[in-house]
Amino acid sequence: MQIIFLGTSAGIPTKRRNVSALGLRLENEKEWYLFDCGEATQHQILKTDLSIYNLSKIFITHLHGDHIYGLFGILASKNMQRAISPLEIYAPKGIKELLECVIKYSNLNLHFELKIFEITKKDVLKFEKFKIYTIPLSHSITSYGYVLVENDRPGRFDVQKAKNLGIPEGPLYAKLKNKEIVILEDGRVFDGNDFVGPPKKGKVVIIGGDNDNPLLFKDFNNADLMIHEATFTQKDFDNLEKSYKHTTSKQLAIAAKELGVKKLIITHISPRYDSDERVNELLEEAKKYYKGEVKVAYDFMKVVL
Amino acid sequence: MQIIFLGTSAGIPTKRRNVSALGLRLENEKEWYLFDCGEATQHQILKTDLSIYNLSKIFITHLHGDHIYGLFGILASKNMQRAISPLEIYAPKGIKELLECVIKYSNLNLHFELKIFEITKKDVLKFEKFKIYTIPLSHSITSYGYVLVENDRPGRFDVQKAKNLGIPEGPLYAKLKNKEIVILEDGRVFDGNDFVGPPKKGKVVIIGGDNDNPLLFKDFNNADLMIHEATFTQKDFDNLEKSYKHTTSKQLAIAAKELGVKKLIITHISPRYDSDERVNELLEEAKKYYKGEVKVAYDFMKVVL
Repeated sequence: MQIIFLGTSAGIPTKRRNVSALGLRLENEKEWYLFDCGEATQHQILKTDLSIYNLSKIFITHLHGDHIYGLFGILASKNMQRAISPLEIYAPKGIKELLECVIKYSNLNLHFELKIFEITKKDVLKFEKFKIYTIPLSHSITSYGYVLVENDRPGRFDVQKAKNLGIPEGPLYAKLKNKEIVILEDGRVFDGNDFVGPPKKGKVVIIGGDNDNPLLFKDFNNADLMIHEATFTQKDFDNLEKSYKHTTSKQLAIAAKELGVKKLIITHISPRYDSDERVNELLEEAKKYYKGEVKVAYDFMKVVL
Repeated sequence: MQIIFLGTSAGIPTKRRNVSALGLRLENEKEWYLFDCGEATQHQILKTDLSIYNLSKIFITHLHGDHIYGLFGILASKNMQRAISPLEIYAPKGIKELLECVIKYSNLNLHFELKIFEITKKDVLKFEKFKIYTIPLSHSITSYGYVLVENDRPGRFDVQKAKNLGIPEGPLYAKLKNKEIVILEDGRVFDGNDFVGPPKKGKVVIIGGDNDNPLLFKDFNNADLMIHEATFTQKDFDNLEKSYKHTTSKQLAIAAKELGVKKLIITHISPRYDSDERVNELLEEAKKYYKGEVKVAYDFMKVVL
């Protein structure tokens, strides 16, 4: 799968970072998904090879403006592009009234089907090629994390082996791929299981919403990738006048170690980290406590899993 | 006054143009005003010397998304900047419910006063240094044009003349500026009127919303500047499958001539005009019918009046 960070700033856009949004596309798929959709996400999409036309699902972690104010423009632009495929939006309770209100007062006459699903609890959403686990998080308002668990994919079919054995190409190969028994005209019998490698394990990706307790993902040990907010370093957080329900780089790294995640990406960066040096403070703090691969996300950063 | 175009595209953002917004600042003022506020207007502001902090009034022509979806982010960011000065929003009916709904569901706890004024008719709004005439337009939904009429400003005070006459600097100059009679200690008498030039005529600027009839501004002959949509050329408009309630470049130029406006700026450009050559078609069409100064707006274009 491919992941692209479309917005990595907390709360407010800066010259370097837009507010939250993340694009995800599974291998060999045309359609793709958004996780959060801050204002100007459609503008960010314009700078990538993604299109609103092929966007099929949006998962919203929580209803703060920096995670949702881009939804309305996405709907309007999909409409103007005469897209007719449905769009599904998954978000905490309130999203339906909010979208209906904006659609009504801005006279948005949608030509495509908008399917809105309100998340109200810890749950599992099943799709054709993956599942999404919804994880209630700890924030100032209702916030969910989404854990994407990709279905296992069939093992590799050994074409060369079939060719070497003189099995004629065509429908028989499809049967072998499907692990069926095949009988050739010359009487030879082959078992598809001998031509197909072990299944490829589906990837597991944790995508956190705003949250001050990354251990809430404890059911997903050993995830391939954890993408989670760390709005501040511990030092800056300790000096804040007011406490915010956000995670620090230190807390996140300790949790990532405890969960045994294979890779960690820090996002939702406070605008105070406005230089490479400042960003590096977040990274260095995390590296003290988590020894796996760790990065601080930036806008348009791509990850292939 | 200074005008800056923050978004000049119709309906949908493109790589060259954002959706509608226009900033206006009167001479010697710190505060400034917005006319329309499409999505990502705050992102455009980041690229100028304007600030959300000093934004005091927003005038919305109509409630289509490409003119309003940036409002919510402006409110959230003004809030995050801990700005406490009030913000006034003038817009057609519906804006109040819309904003209240977005504020409620996105848990936006405003620290500053938001004053919402719904425009329901042809009217005149009086401010300290200018008036705004609200002009009902012709579009698919309720749409207003705004005509800003700046108050006349006092004439120039001739400091040199006062100095040459040996009038001591200080409070007496203020009195003369104020056109009062001044008696010096040596008995000489001066009339302020002899030191102050003729008043500077306030500028008149027509700012159109979406509209298919620019002659609706007929009460404002000889305006210093008319900024108005011309979404299409006449030729393209005539070939559209569906008719839209928009103005063509030809129609606008004919109206500008009839109204006797001194300058014309065309904005709200359809995304189909995606190259300099295509934009030039709009300009050349207008020039056939209007012989004054005419320009096609682009993002970040500045005008000083």
